[in-house]
Amino acid sequence: MGMSSTFGKIFSVTTWGESHGPAVGAVLDGCPAGIPLSEADVQAFLDRRRPGQGKLTTARDEKDQVKILSGVFEGKTTGTPISFVVFNEDQRSGDYSDIEKWFRPGHADLCYDIKYGFRDYRGGGRSSARETIGRVAAGVVARKFLQQVAGTEFVSWVQSVGEVECLSVDLDTLDHDMVEASLVRCPDAAASAKMEQEILEAKKNGDSVGGTVGLVVRNVPAGLGEPVFDRLDALLAQAMLSIPACKGFEIGSGFKAARMHGSEHNDEIFFDGKRYRTRTNNAGGSLGGISNGENIVCRMAFKPTATISQEQKTAGRGGENGSLAAKGRHDPCVAVRAPVIVESMAALVLADLFLQQKRNEMYGSPHSFQSFEDDV
Amino acid sequence: MGMSSTFGKIFSVTTWGESHGPAVGAVLDGCPAGIPLSEADVQAFLDRRRPGQGKLTTARDEKDQVKILSGVFEGKTTGTPISFVVFNEDQRSGDYSDIEKWFRPGHADLCYDIKYGFRDYRGGGRSSARETIGRVAAGVVARKFLQQVAGTEFVSWVQSVGEVECLSVDLDTLDHDMVEASLVRCPDAAASAKMEQEILEAKKNGDSVGGTVGLVVRNVPAGLGEPVFDRLDALLAQAMLSIPACKGFEIGSGFKAARMHGSEHNDEIFFDGKRYRTRTNNAGGSLGGISNGENIVCRMAFKPTATISQEQKTAGRGGENGSLAAKGRHDPCVAVRAPVIVESMAALVLADLFLQQKRNEMYGSPHSFQSFEDDV
Amino acid sequence: MGMSSTFGKIFSVTTWGESHGPAVGAVLDGCPAGIPLSEADVQAFLDRRRPGQGKLTTARDEKDQVKILSGVFEGKTTGTPISFVVFNEDQRSGDYSDIEKWFRPGHADLCYDIKYGFRDYRGGGRSSARETIGRVAAGVVARKFLQQVAGTEFVSWVQSVGEVECLSVDLDTLDHDMVEASLVRCPDAAASAKMEQEILEAKKNGDSVGGTVGLVVRNVPAGLGEPVFDRLDALLAQAMLSIPACKGFEIGSGFKAARMHGSEHNDEIFFDGKRYRTRTNNAGGSLGGISNGENIVCRMAFKPTATISQEQKTAGRGGENGSLAAKGRHDPCVAVRAPVIVESMAALVLADLFLQQKRNEMYGSPHSFQSFEDDV
Amino acid sequence: MGMSSTFGKIFSVTTWGESHGPAVGAVLDGCPAGIPLSEADVQAFLDRRRPGQGKLTTARDEKDQVKILSGVFEGKTTGTPISFVVFNEDQRSGDYSDIEKWFRPGHADLCYDIKYGFRDYRGGGRSSARETIGRVAAGVVARKFLQQVAGTEFVSWVQSVGEVECLSVDLDTLDHDMVEASLVRCPDAAASAKMEQEILEAKKNGDSVGGTVGLVVRNVPAGLGEPVFDRLDALLAQAMLSIPACKGFEIGSGFKAARMHGSEHNDEIFFDGKRYRTRTNNAGGSLGGISNGENIVCRMAFKPTATISQEQKTAGRGGENGSLAAKGRHDPCVAVRAPVIVESMAALVLADLFLQQKRNEMYGSPHSFQSFEDDV
Repeated sequence: MGMSSTFGKIFSVTTWGESHGPAVGAVLDGCPAGIPLSEADVQAFLDRRRPGQGKLTTARDEKDQVKILSGVFEGKTTGTPISFVVFNEDQRSGDYSDIEKWFRPGHADLCYDIKYGFRDYRGGGRSSARETIGRVAAGVVARKFLQQVAGTEFVSWVQSVGEVECLSVDLDTLDHDMVEASLVRCPDAAASAKMEQEILEAKKNGDSVGGTVGLVVRNVPAGLGEPVFDRLDALLAQAMLSIPACKGFEIGSGFKAARMHGSEHNDEIFFDGKRYRTRTNNAGGSLGGISNGENIVCRMAFKPTATISQEQKTAGRGGENGSLAAKGRHDPCVAVRAPVIVESMAALVLADLFLQQKRNEMYGSPHSFQSFEDDV
Repeated sequence: MGMSSTFGKIFSVTTWGESHGPAVGAVLDGCPAGIPLSEADVQAFLDRRRPGQGKLTTARDEKDQVKILSGVFEGKTTGTPISFVVFNEDQRSGDYSDIEKWFRPGHADLCYDIKYGFRDYRGGGRSSARETIGRVAAGVVARKFLQQVAGTEFVSWVQSVGEVECLSVDLDTLDHDMVEASLVRCPDAAASAKMEQEILEAKKNGDSVGGTVGLVVRNVPAGLGEPVFDRLDALLAQAMLSIPACKGFEIGSGFKAARMHGSEHNDEIFFDGKRYRTRTNNAGGSLGGISNGENIVCRMAFKPTATISQEQKTAGRGGENGSLAAKGRHDPCVAVRAPVIVESMAALVLADLFLQQKRNEMYGSPHSFQSFEDDV
Repeated sequence: MGMSSTFGKIFSVTTWGESHGPAVGAVLDGCPAGIPLSEADVQAFLDRRRPGQGKLTTARDEKDQVKILSGVFEGKTTGTPISFVVFNEDQRSGDYSDIEKWFRPGHADLCYDIKYGFRDYRGGGRSSARETIGRVAAGVVARKFLQQVAGTEFVSWVQSVGEVECLSVDLDTLDHDMVEASLVRCPDAAASAKMEQEILEAKKNGDSVGGTVGLVVRNVPAGLGEPVFDRLDALLAQAMLSIPACKGFEIGSGFKAARMHGSEHNDEIFFDGKRYRTRTNNAGGSLGGISNGENIVCRMAFKPTATISQEQKTAGRGGENGSLAAKGRHDPCVAVRAPVIVESMAALVLADLFLQQKRNEMYGSPHSFQSFEDDV
Repeated sequence: MGMSSTFGKIFSVTTWGESHGPAVGAVLDGCPAGIPLSEADVQAFLDRRRPGQGKLTTARDEKDQVKILSGVFEGKTTGTPISFVVFNEDQRSGDYSDIEKWFRPGHADLCYDIKYGFRDYRGGGRSSARETIGRVAAGVVARKFLQQVAGTEFVSWVQSVGEVECLSVDLDTLDHDMVEASLVRCPDAAASAKMEQEILEAKKNGDSVGGTVGLVVRNVPAGLGEPVFDRLDALLAQAMLSIPACKGFEIGSGFKAARMHGSEHNDEIFFDGKRYRTRTNNAGGSLGGISNGENIVCRMAFKPTATISQEQKTAGRGGENGSLAAKGRHDPCVAVRAPVIVESMAALVLADLFLQQKRNEMYGSPHSFQSFEDDV
């Protein structure tokens, strides 16, 4: 479908590229003119995403050097489409010969074959995590824009791996350094160590393991989100479920809300002299699909990587039933690489909603963009 | 934002209307020509949605009589926009006078005020459940279309209320009659009785209670879903989170997947002589965001109704801090009314993706639309 | 196609309804909150559009009373979708019995049949001019908005009927009263009288006649138009060609430009102390698809009404060849009713582009919105 | 605006790149899987577009070598986004130093400055004809697709230059070879020679000249076009006016229709035993915005190139009034290079409408896609 590779209505990114084609990239259209932007800005975040960084991620070694081919002049965005490209280097297509014939259980291979009649069998194609490079690149522009206009900050971390849960995290102070200090991107050192064990154990067994990822967004202008289908939480849900391997999304109290009474769930509102606040944050920063200025807090479930080296029963392209022990290089726990992607998708959602809200500015109440004015 | 009240790219519905305006409705554009459709078809589903049906829902009494004003001729859709309208009758705006002044905790009042500068304070406005009437009406056309072309069936039910969980449900045989036989729409009779108690207890206390809702879709053609941002599961997540009070979404194994290993999570694929199947369904019918022909299974969390008659601390429009005991008529548990809305949104997602997939038909493999051919 | 009845990306209108169904209408989404709006505001423009006003238009007598069903509260837009409805009254379906069987030459009957497999044969269906009621209604909101923020004015008139050309019109002072003073909507009294003769002659002969329509838009903020596919002139062209019977569009010097040299065509730019102006206006107010602040000037060609009462050879639904003398009530010259529709479509284009441009405001140069600041 | 660089709803192309940036390109999303495609296929059409081919076009010498970076595997489209890139080579930015300071009359320089606050002053930026490279590349896929499914053919030619008109052209047999045989792309040899003179004369005078371009599309399936805003003729008008320097569009009898009576303009319909035809083609292949299976015929006006080397009065960035004699290399007549772009835009419109129409297939009448079945 046209635009199924496009996300966002005003600030909109289109990604392209397959894991084993010559390159991957993205085009960002609708970006305001005048935002300072360099290739180094983008590279810093791509470096957080790229594989080959340690014993916990795939051995595929990609430099992921980004080039900006348009839309930036003398260090600032021009308002025209920004084209990002990253050439693929370490492809080793030979590793993937078996999966031409046998469908990997839990993987999208079969579905791509059914949908399109055939597929690029050399890798994950569009379902590969390499597709997310374009999202991270465009997300950098969204971050810079929101940082500038509202001081908005995005921090994501690994909240659990298998049965191991992160027990302590301070949503008001958590930053990228605290997350990146851990090989599994969990800011709780004790939990981090156990998670690392869990992942190495899975890897040793030719297996993989699932995990959950948390996200906090601070300094969110109030009033963002477009009723009814483009509610802030609805777009965040779409954004997160569009990340490979994501199987669940919750915001604020999430599934716990279903066990609560209104009298305990409702967040008390008060006016602090400058703006409206709530004493608790069960809402997770969104009411009626519109931001209320409190932190956006959500949590995503990632399934274990589908491709494992253990032998599994499956069927082949000709209808034969048999088995497959997948070769190739894969992350034993995709959750570990998800945080920078999660942050990027959230930034894309919010930048777009920020620009959509500008239409109400001229008639806006004194409450409008309260946190924007206060927090910057 | 233009189109924020529009859902779907080909088969697309635009809803309009507030809880206390003269009417609510929807326009469905992009509908194929030739689908049999009558007002009675639509009314049957609106009757499942409407309030005033029993002691568990709001006392507001609305007939919700639908009129079709365009797009149907001699009992069939003409391919042009279908306009549905339902006039509001039992509005009693007087009930809502307090909430002009005080923001209801947990409600969208404050956010609407911040976003638009003012709001129709007589009720929930666009955040009211009455907005979903248009979705249910358009969803009927989606259901009829998918029933005809693929035998697709949508059944949703209440899976939990507070701490009470539905313990037995057969996803292959569950139907609307089994669900509607229960006042709380839970097909497990023992659980249903306990849920009813839970809700009445909350109501008696001037309180409300949360719940979860399940959904199964059967006879789904394989190959539906558009990588990467319009993945089947991403669009379902957006669709569900766009329903008022929904705080979480999971598909297949969902959050449980995060605790599993790949070797247990991956669903074994086999060819049954006619088509590819999986022995288990941890995927919930979607891999890589594309349907694999198995049942779509997902679960949604609904928070407790925000508007309660207990007194709660809150702030007022002028910045004063005080308290509010909301009057008005409200559902003590919104989850109970959610199933028909959940089904409708899922039908809208799938009808749109079905039409999007038609572009690949001419070159499609023999695997394409396998379940379509087999199951009808 | 979903959204083919929707126009505009932020400020977006969806029209619905057929000439012989129960009603026609439109939903306007993405409208800024706070614009003063009443049913009387809308009615004033619908009255300029409606038929039955005189000897030159169809005898169909419709009051075209508009109802606003949502999106307005206490006399102002709320930012939520605005639903307009006009019930059809004087339908006389009986008049149209012949055209169920025979395809009218020059009319869309055959194409609708081919496209959708069948059609509502009682009238023009969606190709009827009654569809434009929704555009005019939504256009009123666009006009009010642009009037308020930039003092923008839209005036359209009949420039020619058959061979009779309007010879004198002052684009800087032309207003609605000067246009409406003429039964054919031509501000040149001498030409107007001849045009009236031309139309009555055609009507007497059971025939129809074509015409051209001019448009001027004054006080247009500079900087509107989105390269490359949503250029101001490209969207105006789409908007105008989407009006029934329109066969051609030109802006500024238009087709004359093709006969000119650059040295005569280029408009000299000068700075008048407050803003940049041009001495001539061959550009018609748009360069590179972006408004330059000068008047937008364009011209549209309308073909003669297809439905005429003279007998014409044609084919029937069963493949038979024969002839048809169409009964029913029709305008002998559609151009005469086009001006208010032309103005409305232009207003919809500009309101949408105005809101799109807001994304560049925060970084905008001192030149931005220059005319906006100067002219209001 | 997001998506203002995107064209098409299902089959949709996004272009990016500036005349003096490192590269230009396009991403084509929504393309059906399975269409044979190679870089050579694309190159053949880019070679028709590229500059430096002769004495009549700009001296800028670009090889315009296209690379396909995604979406094609083993010689066929995979259904995923196709990324095209062409690196800029012969930029000579030095030529453009003057236009940093002085706004070129008739050019988009001033408007870009007003809109975005600043611009890449080294060339035309997004308003440069180099932006159309991406359209031509994507158009090749549209052509191949429509050729395969319906035998559709697109031929465009130069119809006039200045006052010189092409007098003989046979719309049923005209082909690319007949057009390309002429240096000015006019198939009438006598007119071609005069046009060449006209252009060389303008060039010698440091001036430029306008022209018109014709287009015929043959073997168009009937039933394409989406009422009401995505009418076939409305989308063609948008497509054509989006090409740099285009100032007018007409279809079929176009502006001549405004001088005609219905009895002469209406095309007689007859059934030829296999399908419905018309004896004349005043409609230009479109009625009610839907194709009727006859040739699509339209004509576009192109203004003279804005950048000329004659000295012209103009204003500067600082508000000073003065004059400019533009250096740089420019086409003296842009119409000469337009045909391949015109064809490409028409192919993009029709491919998209073809895929949109597929939703009506399942209920379609025997008339549906009549020409599709007959002509292939």
